[in-house]
Amino acid sequence: MGGEAALADDLELKAQMAAIGRRAREAARILATAPRAAKDRALREAARRLREHTSELLAANALDMDAARGRGLSKAMLDRLMLNERRIEAMARGLEEIAELPDPVGDELARWRRPNGLEIARVRVPLGVVGIIYESRPNVTADAGGLCLKAGNAAILRGGSESFHSSRAIHACLVEGLRVAGLPEAAVQMVPVTDRVAVGLLLQMHETVDVIVPRGGRSLIERVYAESRIPVLAHLEGICHTYLHERADPAKAVAITFNAKMRRPGICGATETLLVDRSVAETLLPPVLARLLEAGCEIRGDETVRRIEPRARAATEEDWRTEYLDTILAVRVVDGLEEAIAHINTYGSHHTDAIVTEDREAAERFLREVDSAIVIHNASTQFADGGEFGMGAEIGIATGRLHARGPVGVEQLTTFKYVVRGDGQVRPA
Amino acid sequence: MGGEAALADDLELKAQMAAIGRRAREAARILATAPRAAKDRALREAARRLREHTSELLAANALDMDAARGRGLSKAMLDRLMLNERRIEAMARGLEEIAELPDPVGDELARWRRPNGLEIARVRVPLGVVGIIYESRPNVTADAGGLCLKAGNAAILRGGSESFHSSRAIHACLVEGLRVAGLPEAAVQMVPVTDRVAVGLLLQMHETVDVIVPRGGRSLIERVYAESRIPVLAHLEGICHTYLHERADPAKAVAITFNAKMRRPGICGATETLLVDRSVAETLLPPVLARLLEAGCEIRGDETVRRIEPRARAATEEDWRTEYLDTILAVRVVDGLEEAIAHINTYGSHHTDAIVTEDREAAERFLREVDSAIVIHNASTQFADGGEFGMGAEIGIATGRLHARGPVGVEQLTTFKYVVRGDGQVRPA
Repeated sequence: MGGEAALADDLELKAQMAAIGRRAREAARILATAPRAAKDRALREAARRLREHTSELLAANALDMDAARGRGLSKAMLDRLMLNERRIEAMARGLEEIAELPDPVGDELARWRRPNGLEIARVRVPLGVVGIIYESRPNVTADAGGLCLKAGNAAILRGGSESFHSSRAIHACLVEGLRVAGLPEAAVQMVPVTDRVAVGLLLQMHETVDVIVPRGGRSLIERVYAESRIPVLAHLEGICHTYLHERADPAKAVAITFNAKMRRPGICGATETLLVDRSVAETLLPPVLARLLEAGCEIRGDETVRRIEPRARAATEEDWRTEYLDTILAVRVVDGLEEAIAHINTYGSHHTDAIVTEDREAAERFLREVDSAIVIHNASTQFADGGEFGMGAEIGIATGRLHARGPVGVEQLTTFKYVVRGDGQVRPA
Repeated sequence: MGGEAALADDLELKAQMAAIGRRAREAARILATAPRAAKDRALREAARRLREHTSELLAANALDMDAARGRGLSKAMLDRLMLNERRIEAMARGLEEIAELPDPVGDELARWRRPNGLEIARVRVPLGVVGIIYESRPNVTADAGGLCLKAGNAAILRGGSESFHSSRAIHACLVEGLRVAGLPEAAVQMVPVTDRVAVGLLLQMHETVDVIVPRGGRSLIERVYAESRIPVLAHLEGICHTYLHERADPAKAVAITFNAKMRRPGICGATETLLVDRSVAETLLPPVLARLLEAGCEIRGDETVRRIEPRARAATEEDWRTEYLDTILAVRVVDGLEEAIAHINTYGSHHTDAIVTEDREAAERFLREVDSAIVIHNASTQFADGGEFGMGAEIGIATGRLHARGPVGVEQLTTFKYVVRGDGQVRPA
């Protein structure tokens, strides 16, 4: 009997998910040609409701926080889950900022005329239906829903069970905004169960979902990559490097390395490995590492590094492949530009890598040959961010190579079509 | 014992495929910064060798043709497999035309300056390693290998067993070209076995292969979509429509419909369903259908169509969803623009769809609301082709929505990276 009941539940969930997919597809069709004013109004009205309903949001969040404490979640997890007035205001402001961004839909990216008189244009259009799978941060509900809406996409949000009540309260504000703006309420839907099975079902809905955007830890992303029948835009990991070239300016080397590691060690653009040319290791490493050690950063170095800075622990091969997301820095001495590039292309995650040098030619070679989404000369890797790039809000940094590489903002949530205008042309045999 | 031998074979094949992947990744690293002159030289030298070795190519093809006849392959399959002097010359000319195309690698797509002085550029770079899985057409070996090379990608070609000898002979010419030009021979590799297991292995090699391009029938494409751990650029099917609006010019209606169906009924851009407005069905259909019937095209129509043209057979719901790739046309009467758009978005494959009308406003609404890779006003759907778009050679028409939608030429076989130039900037807290 238990098996039968479970089977009935599965069929019920499957039918529910399929219905969500159909509603999303229908909403996407309407959103694709919705005027900018309606989309922006929905965003602003949702922001207003987030502010108005602050106390309800905090109450919903308290339910989630209580349950999370009961389950003994870590302090970091609890912090990610927590809402307060400041965070609610930031979400509301985020939606208003999305409303202020230009509408990408309908932009003509190129236009040309063929010898036979055909006029061909490449025009930006929405992706369609975006499935977003995330974990404990409730603000993703507003950020991702808002970005998808602005780009003319319908969103299916599947948040984590920890943030269920918080996300549902935020989602209600988005739906209110849509309703007031006369847009389909199914433009932003939330999967009403937090069952893991729902994720598996969503990843197979290739007829109604056009792209999957997972936001979360490595195990979630790997599961999505392994199971998805739908194209995935994801951020797998950020093993970012800062490379101090033999012609690095010492002051820049100290400031950039410190910022790249310590500004916020837990973000994907934080530097995880420092490379330094052998010829300048003796002079550059002492001030660079001293500053880090003073601030409480652990250093894991190769033999040369440990000779120069005895407080460094021994690094293993594993350290070159590790995304610490913490106040730990792996440090390795290399024999020049070529070895630095080879190290980054071998051990890195093709996310963001920087060179510090006053040698323009070396910099240009680094920028050309390092195979990463973002390559940087003389600046901190922590600039890897849609906002810092001037793209407005982002849904994440994509580490895949196709479609959207780097920050995924409103423009990256669109695709294009070719519009061909003729006056009776037929194709010759 | 048989089981153990098979297991040993599988492990051997797995090791072989992994080695191919590693060599491809290494070759891709070199190709990514190879100068245009070297890539173009390799293409031209390969073309020269195709011409010089025509008799060897024909002999290799004769082996494949004999085996195919022995296995009782269809006439259409034999025609796809067959090489002759004209087809070999076309392959050689194709490689030379790819050499003449501009090199996309290094193109700066955009550049902007941030208030903090950071200069950000978006620069075109190769995709990396492209896996191409194809069936019986041996010319794909040259076309796909050449396009990948021009875009700076390494290619792993996995052809069908039917064309094994032909493809191997063509591949040898490509490798000779690479060698003469001083480029890595592993830039274009061929999987040396035609085992189906090799396809399964290739689709899991996400560490060394960046994108999969399948070329072939629906069952191959569906298998690739279902199994691939790697992003896929593919052409699933082309259920293309021509819609005769109530303000269609009758002469254009006849000429465009005839060309869209009959020029080459077997290509993906061929129209499969004709839609016509009820108000003009009585006047437009007789001349449009008469021309098609005279040329031997079968018509499958709804009730109204069959009343107007008694030679039409009855269409079923299934016909609206069928890609005939043959001299068969489904014909349906609709109640105006909105119903036409709804039919296309429901039954079509989002490939290429055309409207015939003198009403500019109706045309613009059609172009905006039909959700297809290519939308056309007053011209034949058979223009859906990279060459006709002015892109040069193409590897196919992608029906997915991400990255490359529509014709996949050299540019679509690239991605981009962000190059950030600073002078010491660190990110404020």
